[in-house]
Amino acid sequence: MINLLCEKIQKRNAPVVVGLDPMLSYVPEHVVKKSLAEYGETLEGAADAIWQFNKEIVDSIYDLIPAVKPQVAMYEQFGVAGMAAYQKTVDYCQEKGLIVIGDVKRGDIGSTSAAYAAGHLGKVQVGSRLLTAFHEDFVTVNPYLGTDGVKPFIDVCREEKKGLFILVKTSNPSSGEFQDRLIDGRPLYEWVGEQVARWGETCMGDSYSYVGAVVGATYPEMGKTLRKLMPKSFILVPGYGAQGGKAEDLAPYFNEDGLGAIVNSSRGIIAAYKKEPYAKFGAEHFGEASRQAVLDMIADIGGALNRR
Amino acid sequence: MINLLCEKIQKRNAPVVVGLDPMLSYVPEHVVKKSLAEYGETLEGAADAIWQFNKEIVDSIYDLIPAVKPQVAMYEQFGVAGMAAYQKTVDYCQEKGLIVIGDVKRGDIGSTSAAYAAGHLGKVQVGSRLLTAFHEDFVTVNPYLGTDGVKPFIDVCREEKKGLFILVKTSNPSSGEFQDRLIDGRPLYEWVGEQVARWGETCMGDSYSYVGAVVGATYPEMGKTLRKLMPKSFILVPGYGAQGGKAEDLAPYFNEDGLGAIVNSSRGIIAAYKKEPYAKFGAEHFGEASRQAVLDMIADIGGALNRR
Repeated sequence: MINLLCEKIQKRNAPVVVGLDPMLSYVPEHVVKKSLAEYGETLEGAADAIWQFNKEIVDSIYDLIPAVKPQVAMYEQFGVAGMAAYQKTVDYCQEKGLIVIGDVKRGDIGSTSAAYAAGHLGKVQVGSRLLTAFHEDFVTVNPYLGTDGVKPFIDVCREEKKGLFILVKTSNPSSGEFQDRLIDGRPLYEWVGEQVARWGETCMGDSYSYVGAVVGATYPEMGKTLRKLMPKSFILVPGYGAQGGKAEDLAPYFNEDGLGAIVNSSRGIIAAYKKEPYAKFGAEHFGEASRQAVLDMIADIGGALNRR
Repeated sequence: MINLLCEKIQKRNAPVVVGLDPMLSYVPEHVVKKSLAEYGETLEGAADAIWQFNKEIVDSIYDLIPAVKPQVAMYEQFGVAGMAAYQKTVDYCQEKGLIVIGDVKRGDIGSTSAAYAAGHLGKVQVGSRLLTAFHEDFVTVNPYLGTDGVKPFIDVCREEKKGLFILVKTSNPSSGEFQDRLIDGRPLYEWVGEQVARWGETCMGDSYSYVGAVVGATYPEMGKTLRKLMPKSFILVPGYGAQGGKAEDLAPYFNEDGLGAIVNSSRGIIAAYKKEPYAKFGAEHFGEASRQAVLDMIADIGGALNRR
């Protein structure tokens, strides 16, 4: 799957992933109204609204980008109905040829991580059959529990040719509280990054490992260091746009081959219609606003990579 | 909810929580067979089997214990159908008067943690209505992202009188890989523990905070230190029994009042019928085997607390 990700990034010339994180407040009123009219003011109604919203956005942008990253929390908040909307979104994006990075940030002790890995990336045995459940192509994983919490995910990736992005340095303001603390003179995120590189060596695609890392766009100096520590790990970069990360700062996250990183934008794309310069499209045409925002983001990041 | 947890522990004289982590391999053949006959060899069939299994166990033990801890991964692996079985399990346990600790280990950046907190402990706004989704009473939370990842959970706890257990020192063998690394001469888990105590001060019940901690039974020396660092935080203790934690080692996790900790056992209880000395009950009577295992666990831990 990491080979396919590289291929799709090169084909589209777009190291960009769109975060499908549909807060209900992002969904235009006419979409919400229609869903609630059909299902009532229920979790099912909310779940239908975010699914309809996703579908129109995906229809508007799928030919421009290699991948999407649905944030499962935005679905999980609507309970079982929300998880069904998550599943529909994963299915639909894959049908449209998009790689799906499930932003689930799971991580537990060994046997429990094995269950998460089976349900999200692998297969579960039911009677005589092997079945898939959520079947994303990549998932994000939290490393706090150490190797035996991560290894079950790696085992499934090796078997199923799927991939991981492990949290190394997150994009949020207080990520430094634990991640930046110095251990033998070096911050924790560097130790985690080194471990990601080691895990990655056990699970290599052609040029990059199946095991990647999450490094926020909001900490470019750290991104530079981590790029060197994990030369074969793809970096998933959240925090571009709405969270403050700028394209110029992101060049060091990439390798010389123009690969090695994929930059995420969520509300900057999916809620584009709510903000200048895309408000002119109007809420009725939110998909077109998203399309223009994707084109602008690709140009912005491409430009920054060309200028380096 | 923390007050209610204290009250129920005292009433039952049982600082014990049963982990409802139903691997399909734990479910007796006759239960699996019946569910698969009804739903086929499908995710729905697997989900029905674990739900039927849970129901019989809960019916057999609900009067003995204050709380259960379903591990969501064991449900999530069966996709949307599995999440529906999780929801049914939460609902049923609450109907039976049990406090439900959702072992979800979620944690993300602020706005995303807010969605998890709303979906698991709080309410979501849909049109003019405020709805609940999974509505557990407590959830476990991963602290790697720092305060702004945890705060949305605390805010919801304050509003809804619900609670958290934040991962401090986990029970797995490689938990030390990052958690034990020394920062200014003290291991990371102590820094996290201190932060848990600080977070907890902002959200107090009568004697204990709504913000508790997870500290594995497999590291009793660390449990002792952490008990002192977090005097007002309830400690959820996984790793008793199957993972190797012994009752004698657990006394230091408790305060003088006999409260302050709650010890979890999962497969030691729910799969009791598969092992001596409970195999004599037979697979047909797995609920009775679980009941006896709970009684033995309560006596084991009670004895260790009395001997100290």
